[in-house]
Amino acid sequence: MEIQSCLPIWDKLSEAQQNRILGSAACRQIKKGTVIHNGGMDCTGLLLVRCGQLRAYILSDEGREVTIYRLFDRDICLFSASCMLRSIQFDITIEAEKDTDLWVIPAETYREIMEESAPLANYTNEIMASRFTEVMWLVEQIMWKSMDRRIAAFLLEEVSIEKTKRLAITHETIARHLGTHREVITRMLRYFQGEGMVRLSRGIVEITAAEKLEALKNA
Amino acid sequence: MEIQSCLPIWDKLSEAQQNRILGSAACRQIKKGTVIHNGGMDCTGLLLVRCGQLRAYILSDEGREVTIYRLFDRDICLFSASCMLRSIQFDITIEAEKDTDLWVIPAETYREIMEESAPLANYTNEIMASRFTEVMWLVEQIMWKSMDRRIAAFLLEEVSIEKTKRLAITHETIARHLGTHREVITRMLRYFQGEGMVRLSRGIVEITAAEKLEALKNA
Repeated sequence: MEIQSCLPIWDKLSEAQQNRILGSAACRQIKKGTVIHNGGMDCTGLLLVRCGQLRAYILSDEGREVTIYRLFDRDICLFSASCMLRSIQFDITIEAEKDTDLWVIPAETYREIMEESAPLANYTNEIMASRFTEVMWLVEQIMWKSMDRRIAAFLLEEVSIEKTKRLAITHETIARHLGTHREVITRMLRYFQGEGMVRLSRGIVEITAAEKLEALKNA
Repeated sequence: MEIQSCLPIWDKLSEAQQNRILGSAACRQIKKGTVIHNGGMDCTGLLLVRCGQLRAYILSDEGREVTIYRLFDRDICLFSASCMLRSIQFDITIEAEKDTDLWVIPAETYREIMEESAPLANYTNEIMASRFTEVMWLVEQIMWKSMDRRIAAFLLEEVSIEKTKRLAITHETIARHLGTHREVITRMLRYFQGEGMVRLSRGIVEITAAEKLEALKNA
């Protein structure tokens, strides 16, 4: 997959702009579990996911995590190039959740082209607006939803990403995504098991009644 | 105050673009307490605050609120023109916290100019990035900070906005800003009073030891 297919506005760039992107972009292969970008000090550059899966999360002083959003094939990660926009003043960590191939465009190159290209600047606006939408969803979840509904929503999201009802995921990992403690997850999953919604075994959460989880999520 | 002073990139617009903005903008005077924009169905237009104070918040199904950010003189509200960007998919309510004078630019006019003007599109990016920063701050607060520290931070913010340590604010209003119940606020303020940080009287919270609140906020 080429850079062009990650940038729907490619044809609206001049040939010179296209060449600057092609000439400066680097292709990287990232192993699952690697932290690609670590907070605001870093300006890794713009990441275009060719294939794989990234997770963007924030960290508390005590090392607790909460997942902000995930990126899949053809998604673009702006916040790894936060030096690009003066007003981005928060720290995000980005980690490969699966083996991932990506293009890295240097922040400086991207910023220079964006400054002269209305199509690229507007496309960047759309990307930021969709991340904003995801963060607002997260705010609503943590403000108004109880943990049982958040876990139900998380499990259903995993089923849809992994395309299997047999999830290879630990309680610890679920806790890190949701910004809570492992014990909270274990207790809730046992309750879900008692209700016949899931079956638990070592390192596995198997969804046995997705419709019940769905009902809980929307409760 | 004129529109020009809210748009630092004014000089980078063509005369035709400037005239389209001037020709379509309407000046409105909003009474304190008025809801100007109500969720995603509405496309009120871009709001430029001439003077006054706006509050953007989200609402739960049960009617609980939490303040997302506030806007002051010369600030621009993008999300009241959410129809402008396809990817904005969340509902925000905007209310005048004080009597407010503002300019309204129709979303359609703004979008048309933004599509052809890289400076306006980039400026819009910066505005969105600063709102994003505020929302990320909020996420960190509600995920990692206990309610006592959130109340301390809120009171100190009010002191800085109102430029007085004698705040005319009810416990109910504080609860609405922070997305919690009045009883929680009352209990905590009484504790603060016991610690000598505030003095409470009807409709008034007076800060008596800002440095203690500051220490608590940063604890």
